[in-house]
Amino acid sequence: MTTLTDATTASAPTDSPTDPVRDAVLDVARRAKVASRALAMATRAQKDSALLALADALVAATDEIVAANEVDVRRGRENGTSVGLLDRLTLTPDRVEAIAAALRELAALPDPVGEVVRGSTLPNGLRLRQVRVPMGVVGMIYEARPNVTVDAAGLALKSGNAVILRGGSAAATSNEVIVGVLSRALVAQGLPADAVQSIDAYGREGAVALMHARGLVDLLVPRGGADLIQTVVRESTVPVVETGVGNCHVYVDASADPAMALPILLNSKTQRTGVCNAAETLLVHADAAPAFLPLALAALAEAGVVVHGDARTAALAPAGVAVVPATDDDWAREYLALEIAVGVVDDLDGALEHIRTWTSGHTEAIVTRDLTSSERFVAELDSAAIMVNASTRFTDGGQFGLGAEIGISTQKLHARGPMGLGELTTTKWIVQGDGQIRS
Amino acid sequence: MTTLTDATTASAPTDSPTDPVRDAVLDVARRAKVASRALAMATRAQKDSALLALADALVAATDEIVAANEVDVRRGRENGTSVGLLDRLTLTPDRVEAIAAALRELAALPDPVGEVVRGSTLPNGLRLRQVRVPMGVVGMIYEARPNVTVDAAGLALKSGNAVILRGGSAAATSNEVIVGVLSRALVAQGLPADAVQSIDAYGREGAVALMHARGLVDLLVPRGGADLIQTVVRESTVPVVETGVGNCHVYVDASADPAMALPILLNSKTQRTGVCNAAETLLVHADAAPAFLPLALAALAEAGVVVHGDARTAALAPAGVAVVPATDDDWAREYLALEIAVGVVDDLDGALEHIRTWTSGHTEAIVTRDLTSSERFVAELDSAAIMVNASTRFTDGGQFGLGAEIGISTQKLHARGPMGLGELTTTKWIVQGDGQIRS
Repeated sequence: MTTLTDATTASAPTDSPTDPVRDAVLDVARRAKVASRALAMATRAQKDSALLALADALVAATDEIVAANEVDVRRGRENGTSVGLLDRLTLTPDRVEAIAAALRELAALPDPVGEVVRGSTLPNGLRLRQVRVPMGVVGMIYEARPNVTVDAAGLALKSGNAVILRGGSAAATSNEVIVGVLSRALVAQGLPADAVQSIDAYGREGAVALMHARGLVDLLVPRGGADLIQTVVRESTVPVVETGVGNCHVYVDASADPAMALPILLNSKTQRTGVCNAAETLLVHADAAPAFLPLALAALAEAGVVVHGDARTAALAPAGVAVVPATDDDWAREYLALEIAVGVVDDLDGALEHIRTWTSGHTEAIVTRDLTSSERFVAELDSAAIMVNASTRFTDGGQFGLGAEIGISTQKLHARGPMGLGELTTTKWIVQGDGQIRS
Repeated sequence: MTTLTDATTASAPTDSPTDPVRDAVLDVARRAKVASRALAMATRAQKDSALLALADALVAATDEIVAANEVDVRRGRENGTSVGLLDRLTLTPDRVEAIAAALRELAALPDPVGEVVRGSTLPNGLRLRQVRVPMGVVGMIYEARPNVTVDAAGLALKSGNAVILRGGSAAATSNEVIVGVLSRALVAQGLPADAVQSIDAYGREGAVALMHARGLVDLLVPRGGADLIQTVVRESTVPVVETGVGNCHVYVDASADPAMALPILLNSKTQRTGVCNAAETLLVHADAAPAFLPLALAALAEAGVVVHGDARTAALAPAGVAVVPATDDDWAREYLALEIAVGVVDDLDGALEHIRTWTSGHTEAIVTRDLTSSERFVAELDSAAIMVNASTRFTDGGQFGLGAEIGISTQKLHARGPMGLGELTTTKWIVQGDGQIRS
């Protein structure tokens, strides 16, 4: 996994007055700021027609993009990159088409810019309204996923923002070609080329400079592994929204119907493992455990899931199903793999306490038939999303009907849960009078 | 002015594993987190009745509070504190009554917690809703204003948050007594004493520890001078909302009616000088300058305002009115005093460019009769509030009808402009199903 740790540990150079990388990145940011002014004034029609043009340009450049991507994939394979990461890195003609289709879907979504959030006429006659406007310049720091390059550019364009991309070395060749295609298509549409810029050429030092570009970068979104996200959150002096680390829990209450609990557990854990809304821990009420856990452990084993369990879980394992003893590391871990931590709790309070202690605040699910359990689980946990009798996998902008998402926020400031177009905007207060002064 | 610079330059101790100040502050934060859970479940009736009880308790303790405050004021006077800061620091029985009245007004405001922001039933039958919930633990770092101690505690309580206060050494004795009164009144109301805590006893190192209390502090709001705010923004690893630095502009357009422009200018500059929504720069269109500036400069001089002007301004000064040559420092400065920077611009574009270059993004006002100028000023500037033919002084939670405010955000993330009760909340997604899984 690519992390920024090396660069940030050695961040001193960016404080020097003559650092060429920092100067170059600040210049990129200044040009993005200028471009953002034109983007903020663009009409929905202009932005949507540009999105469709970007989609067409990407499809037209499929051969060039796939060829560049092969360079990255080959280098990744030589460097021993994992199969999962290689899969995320790889672009095929079908995947390029799917990425372009996502841009076309963006064009069909409503424009958040200009929405009047609230307004009134004040007693002194002032007409007050709060209107949604673009953030300005949005930075994205992400890893090895060239589709994010296009998604981020499209979301930023639709919401009227300029974007600065730092996609990491693993996908550098793919991203360079993609950004070139996007820039040329923007210019052909009469929009500024600086609306979408990459700072991959400036390496990790460039990423650090972006994190420190106060006054030029209005929002920085890290997307990737926990190490990358924590580095960005810790190092940045620009405003950051923390995304995507999901230690999600499924709690099976005493009253749960096993026939509902089992599919929810399996779907949450195994429907897709490398994503932040996959379940990482199963908690079972002691009263439900004797009937449910043998079934659940057998089903998990059959699905190829390695179980890290506490002693009570191990005691209920059916013959032939191995349970690795769970440690605190397991309760904390986001496996992103066919592994799960399993614990038996005495009651709902035990489940709430366990989740409060270990959760990353992403998504928690309860399976229950009891109204009080359901209401307490919803009210007393402090996570971005709470599911009652549904899979954790539903925490997703598309599933929630919000359209595309730039990430899933696990912080409480500004955005929480799936971040769509609206979360890439801020507001401006507009006050119209005819000479009012304050007395 | 108190700043945190010393403490933050010497922040190494907080990274040591055995720092007693850091451990003490983290313990405060942990207790606040526990208290926040009870506050999040409190009903509006409980919170409002507690607010009224806090108000009564403060009034009942007036003598004790005023006596403690005299200690702070005397020390401030001995230390050569400015008249303006001494005035903000001073509590009289009338001021204590006014502070208590603000709490009673808070009780009358709607409760933001529980508001359903949006919701729908998804095609698969899932019932989705996004509900406003408290942030959890809110930190406040502020300077020498004991009324902020009560305001912050009241706003936090009404919005269901626990609050950790760092009020600075200048008001330490007043704040200690006030926090004691508030805590006892909370307990008498059946709410946790840890809902309102002060870390003043831990000095500047304590403030630094608060800025680094990731996972325990959900929102940190600095309120005070530019140095304090910048230190908090730069140092913090917890989420921060930047407040209150206002380099606000009044632009008098070619078509402005001088009879409207002059009162707006004087009100913006002189109605109250030590506040962030006071004007600090006047820009005048070259066509309006010959008629307007002599009037304006004479009126400013009569109001005791020192004018820092460019050459074209100086050339239009009436006899007997001194114009100090303006430097770049003047265009950048938030005087918070009877001083103003004045410049003549060639046209609206010149005004927009000047404001973009120098503004802190708080409030800008245009005086004009021209629709195009008004619309361009509103659309092309990127500040929290834009006034058309109205005083900059209206950017205020109370004036906007939002009720009390905890500060005025000049950043774009989460809150922009006056931050009221709603801005002290986040949201939670609640999804209710009957066994739905993702296919």
